Amino acid sequence: MNIDLNCDLGESSGNEAAIMPYITSANIACGFHAGGPSVMQATARLAKQHGVAIGAHPGWPDLQGFGRREMSFSAEEVEALVLYQIGALAGIARAEGVELRHVKPHGALYNQAVVDAALAESIARAVKRFSRELILVGLAGSSLVERARGLGLSVASEAFPDRGYHPDGTLMSRTLPGAVLHDSAAVAEHAVRLATEGIRFGEKVILPDTLCLHGDNETAAENARLVREKLAAAGIAVRGL
Amino acid sequence: MNIDLNCDLGESSGNEAAIMPYITSANIACGFHAGGPSVMQATARLAKQHGVAIGAHPGWPDLQGFGRREMSFSAEEVEALVLYQIGALAGIARAEGVELRHVKPHGALYNQAVVDAALAESIARAVKRFSRELILVGLAGSSLVERARGLGLSVASEAFPDRGYHPDGTLMSRTLPGAVLHDSAAVAEHAVRLATEGIRFGEKVILPDTLCLHGDNETAAENARLVREKLAAAGIAVRGL
Amino acid sequence: MNIDLNCDLGESSGNEAAIMPYITSANIACGFHAGGPSVMQATARLAKQHGVAIGAHPGWPDLQGFGRREMSFSAEEVEALVLYQIGALAGIARAEGVELRHVKPHGALYNQAVVDAALAESIARAVKRFSRELILVGLAGSSLVERARGLGLSVASEAFPDRGYHPDGTLMSRTLPGAVLHDSAAVAEHAVRLATEGIRFGEKVILPDTLCLHGDNETAAENARLVREKLAAAGIAVRGL
Amino acid sequence: MNIDLNCDLGESSGNEAAIMPYITSANIACGFHAGGPSVMQATARLAKQHGVAIGAHPGWPDLQGFGRREMSFSAEEVEALVLYQIGALAGIARAEGVELRHVKPHGALYNQAVVDAALAESIARAVKRFSRELILVGLAGSSLVERARGLGLSVASEAFPDRGYHPDGTLMSRTLPGAVLHDSAAVAEHAVRLATEGIRFGEKVILPDTLCLHGDNETAAENARLVREKLAAAGIAVRGL
Repeated sequence: MNIDLNCDLGESSGNEAAIMPYITSANIACGFHAGGPSVMQATARLAKQHGVAIGAHPGWPDLQGFGRREMSFSAEEVEALVLYQIGALAGIARAEGVELRHVKPHGALYNQAVVDAALAESIARAVKRFSRELILVGLAGSSLVERARGLGLSVASEAFPDRGYHPDGTLMSRTLPGAVLHDSAAVAEHAVRLATEGIRFGEKVILPDTLCLHGDNETAAENARLVREKLAAAGIAVRGL
Repeated sequence: MNIDLNCDLGESSGNEAAIMPYITSANIACGFHAGGPSVMQATARLAKQHGVAIGAHPGWPDLQGFGRREMSFSAEEVEALVLYQIGALAGIARAEGVELRHVKPHGALYNQAVVDAALAESIARAVKRFSRELILVGLAGSSLVERARGLGLSVASEAFPDRGYHPDGTLMSRTLPGAVLHDSAAVAEHAVRLATEGIRFGEKVILPDTLCLHGDNETAAENARLVREKLAAAGIAVRGL
Repeated sequence: MNIDLNCDLGESSGNEAAIMPYITSANIACGFHAGGPSVMQATARLAKQHGVAIGAHPGWPDLQGFGRREMSFSAEEVEALVLYQIGALAGIARAEGVELRHVKPHGALYNQAVVDAALAESIARAVKRFSRELILVGLAGSSLVERARGLGLSVASEAFPDRGYHPDGTLMSRTLPGAVLHDSAAVAEHAVRLATEGIRFGEKVILPDTLCLHGDNETAAENARLVREKLAAAGIAVRGL
Repeated sequence: MNIDLNCDLGESSGNEAAIMPYITSANIACGFHAGGPSVMQATARLAKQHGVAIGAHPGWPDLQGFGRREMSFSAEEVEALVLYQIGALAGIARAEGVELRHVKPHGALYNQAVVDAALAESIARAVKRFSRELILVGLAGSSLVERARGLGLSVASEAFPDRGYHPDGTLMSRTLPGAVLHDSAAVAEHAVRLATEGIRFGEKVILPDTLCLHGDNETAAENARLVREKLAAAGIAVRGL
């Protein structure tokens, strides 16, 4: 058994260096919700040094709202928006001698694509038009994963060790009590449970391909270290996508 | 004898369709001084339909000033800025099944690189790191052309049929009387003279590889038509870079 | 009988000077969907010269989409967004010795507030918190006008001479056939009808306080001239809010 | 003897609450180099709760470079840029029932105005056109302070307790060794020395009106606390401008 560990980076949290040793995939912000050319370059370099695979982390154009505000674009606009951001990071990565491995939408773009099949289709189509080699990362059980698979793309189902789930397999909103796990030990145990038991959607169980670790708080590195320790103890190898 | 005709596009002038039939290279704005994902996509498609080669037209991040304000970035920042913009357009172009042929900096980035050798070097290095196949377009006789050549890049020397030149070969500032030619016939004649006689820099004469046509005014298409007519009459073939 | 004529300006259409003589209220874009400090300053000066009242024209932060994309902000974020934009224009106007007379939301912000009462309330509250003297301009019969009135603000009901209306009084979507009137004479006649007969919402008839003229096309000035001519012929005085 | 303590806030450092109790003036970023409507609103509220005076902290439009890149605008553009930002904050402050007390330029705009008299003049003129009641804060001994005084504005000379000075009174560049003091005790002692002995420019000594504390690092609150303690011990009262 094995699993990937991913983290959203290049978002100016300042904890990049501390989290890098623990992850296998870095989702790099592309300048629309956070980051920018110089931060992207620095993050790509750091990831390369640590042997961490890099992927694009496109978001809505919303620097002030950190990409967390819902927006409504036409299908064509979404495709262009995603292609632009993938290309921008690919250009910077190419200069560093690295290729992109995956794409994971950010914030509201990610969340809206969980339930909005048309949006999910536009994102997946953009990824496919850029390259059929890219892996699209989306919430386990979401519209995004389903549509991407339908288009013949490689997909990776993502789960969140520090987040609570409803009994029907959907992610709890951050505004609900118990939606965010703050204790490192609890996060690590949840990670092991997700990796071994998966998420139950009614009859179906989905085993996640990748777990998302957060890098934007002070306990990030400690959480990550403990997750790896517990996964190792449970006999689960951490391996890139 | 032959020459390329290029035009800055994707800058929301609205005259794209009218100028396309007359040019061989389209410099597409990359969202920093003008344009954006959707405009870039539409412009790349239009260029492809007309068999016009496309290139990136990177600028300073200055939407409100249209990239005409001088800025000061570190060498590393300039490289990242240029790589980001080339990559963004390349991503969009790739989805349309087109490859970039060239890169031509915009506005203040272009003008500062005429005289600022360090800036010119950073731009050229970014282009080279993206791909040695890309042609860098710069003002004939400028630092940019010289530095790019020094790095082993293919370069194209550019001249402006609708602009006046000083006797020493430098371009007249737009603020000087006579700096901008408004008469279509005069522009076309100047185009022929530039293509056949070149520009004299003291002892040296430089024959331009490409002439820049402007697409952002009402006489743009008429100017372009007349330039082609006069070039043809003078036996000069119009051919892409 | 009298009516105000308003126009959205400072959106880089280039026709400002031509339309100014015909209007009584200028809605100036505040840099979020279009415009910026310098354009705002130039437009405010021009309006002052023509004795045209100026108002803020706040929009979603969406330069690339011209504020036409729907967005979802919290109530507090909307208030801050609107206050920021009103303040920015007020700062520029103050330096020119002019006070703002009104506020009219732009694009998707305007359209969403037609039906979204919570959004309408946030916009109205921002205006009121800035100044109870400001008049809020909204679509006749909309949630925005109603909520603003509920908060005790002065409001102005707006109608569109160049747009078609459904029999129930709602504005036709631009995507429907007949939604946009292109003929100047038809626009002018519609203006007179709107000013004299108003808009019928079931039992209720609303007489608009202001008519919106568009300044972003070539027939803008001619339309405006004809509207004023026909209004005058019908005995309706054109007067600011 | 008394002195003001100011701090740049609303720049998303996350340490606002910790530093507020120690300062008397908050310079709030206005969305061009950092911040935005919602952050400005939250910061203005926090300042009001602590009885801290607020001022605008305008910068170049450079979110990605945090306003630290040199830019070149025309005099008119600078005025519009500064008026826009002052107005935007004033709009938000007005809704909170607070008036702006001062204006302090940020980053490269501040630094360029130290030596560029024309830029200094444009900034000062914008402040004056907004309101003669506003105090312009600039580097002690700089062109900005001098020009503002020349225009009849109230000015406040600023000094930096955590920065080294050359013997001629000019501030050391951050790139030089010894340019930044990291030890809290040393910073506090420097603060007392600046407040009591001032800065020597050849024959002339300038006593600063305000000391800048930094809020963007982990020792910020501790530095601030110690500065106040030492100032108190030296008999210097901390009082707003």
